[in-house]
Amino acid sequence: MSYFTEEASAETVNARIGAEANPRLAQVMAALVRHLHTFTKEVELTQDEWDHAIAFLTQTGQICTDERQEFILLSDILGLSMLVDAINNRRPEGATENTVLGPFHVAGAPERAMGETISLDGKGESCLYEGRVLDLEGQPVAGARIDVWSDNAEGYYDVQQPEIQPRWNNRGIFTTGADGRYAFRGIKPVSYPIPDDGPVGKLLGQLGRHPFRPAHMHYRVSAPGFRPIITHTFVGEDPYLTSDTVFGVKESLVAPFERVEAETLWRSPFDFVMVPEG
Amino acid sequence: MSYFTEEASAETVNARIGAEANPRLAQVMAALVRHLHTFTKEVELTQDEWDHAIAFLTQTGQICTDERQEFILLSDILGLSMLVDAINNRRPEGATENTVLGPFHVAGAPERAMGETISLDGKGESCLYEGRVLDLEGQPVAGARIDVWSDNAEGYYDVQQPEIQPRWNNRGIFTTGADGRYAFRGIKPVSYPIPDDGPVGKLLGQLGRHPFRPAHMHYRVSAPGFRPIITHTFVGEDPYLTSDTVFGVKESLVAPFERVEAETLWRSPFDFVMVPEG
Repeated sequence: MSYFTEEASAETVNARIGAEANPRLAQVMAALVRHLHTFTKEVELTQDEWDHAIAFLTQTGQICTDERQEFILLSDILGLSMLVDAINNRRPEGATENTVLGPFHVAGAPERAMGETISLDGKGESCLYEGRVLDLEGQPVAGARIDVWSDNAEGYYDVQQPEIQPRWNNRGIFTTGADGRYAFRGIKPVSYPIPDDGPVGKLLGQLGRHPFRPAHMHYRVSAPGFRPIITHTFVGEDPYLTSDTVFGVKESLVAPFERVEAETLWRSPFDFVMVPEG
Repeated sequence: MSYFTEEASAETVNARIGAEANPRLAQVMAALVRHLHTFTKEVELTQDEWDHAIAFLTQTGQICTDERQEFILLSDILGLSMLVDAINNRRPEGATENTVLGPFHVAGAPERAMGETISLDGKGESCLYEGRVLDLEGQPVAGARIDVWSDNAEGYYDVQQPEIQPRWNNRGIFTTGADGRYAFRGIKPVSYPIPDDGPVGKLLGQLGRHPFRPAHMHYRVSAPGFRPIITHTFVGEDPYLTSDTVFGVKESLVAPFERVEAETLWRSPFDFVMVPEG
């Protein structure tokens, strides 16, 4: 036990952690304190800046409701959500990469037959999504459940517009057969801004950043004996592809997007490659 | 602009900061992102731990009211408040050191004559606080305003018990004359816990730490031409002197505390040494 000094500030704080603390909590908190103190010393944070940070964090907590999670938004725009996702989902070369789940997944979407459409509001440009679910050896994975969801042609998920969109609009679950193939019709998704009317949106503005996500289709692919894949494919030549405000884009997830027949029909092929459990 | 990778995560985030951002904000946020990402990689933060952190920060924000600032408490128990105070109040050898203001200062306390008491509730052990306000050359500082405040004998400030304690109990302002001397009567303060019924108190418990602050008298000393001093003196042989839960104790602020006459009369001498402005 020792008195506070600027030089040994983090060591003094961490020396207080008791022997009875959970070892992992002690490790994480000691590292957090060390890095926060190093940061504070490096920038020589002023008292005014500290006041501002306290107010910012307080506002971020206070705007949260059951429908709005501003701290997740903050984590997203600082690239932390993607970093945690990347650390916890490292996969061998050739496997489909993960990206963030996002706030709009809803469990229990309707099971649909292969080739069916998920678009129930008749809006947007029709697109055929198709491909295979494979293992690392290129063999088809049978019985893979492909849970898909996207925004509608105006950039809103059904749950954001319960009075306007049909329930389960642009959502569905497809299960592969022996050939591992999947196919469904959806729309060409559109880019949309994350909620930017709160403290996180204000911070984005102050940093000279826009709040947009490039257009994407969400997937959760699961199959017995394999690790689930939570990912998006990014479709079309979106202007925000290299500036996704939540950093969700990985190069391997940019899917082909081809015009096939009429003016409103597109095709976006993508194969999912799964890694065995364990 | 580039796609996200685990390796270059912080660089990818920071490359997005626009040229129009305030340069200081850009510097602080880029450093914050860099250190947060380094921390996250070092401990390999799990998805569950990230979920827990989001919930903790949200609860911390939501418990804040006009009377309660849980994010300041969090900053306090992580030693960040003291670190920011130290960085912004570096002083030459021999000058009185700063410590945190704390949440209980109230502007506009009564001006009192030298030697008067600040204890209005008649509780606690009486103590004479006395000393001089000096400059770095040891010359007296005339016209120095000494704003003092402490808890009462039960460990509460008047503002925490507006129905129970007299208004301005254990508060007062004293102004030095030509000799720079001050003297006032108060009580021997007592140690007290910070509010520990919220997420910060729970974290302290999980870390095997207690929520107590050692007994102290608060001072704000100001004089024309000098930098103000915001500090405490720590009085008595307090069991929490080397384990202040907010890390407010510096060795130079532990004041003598002597028994002088009767059983209930103490004396605590302390000289304040001020640094010229600029």
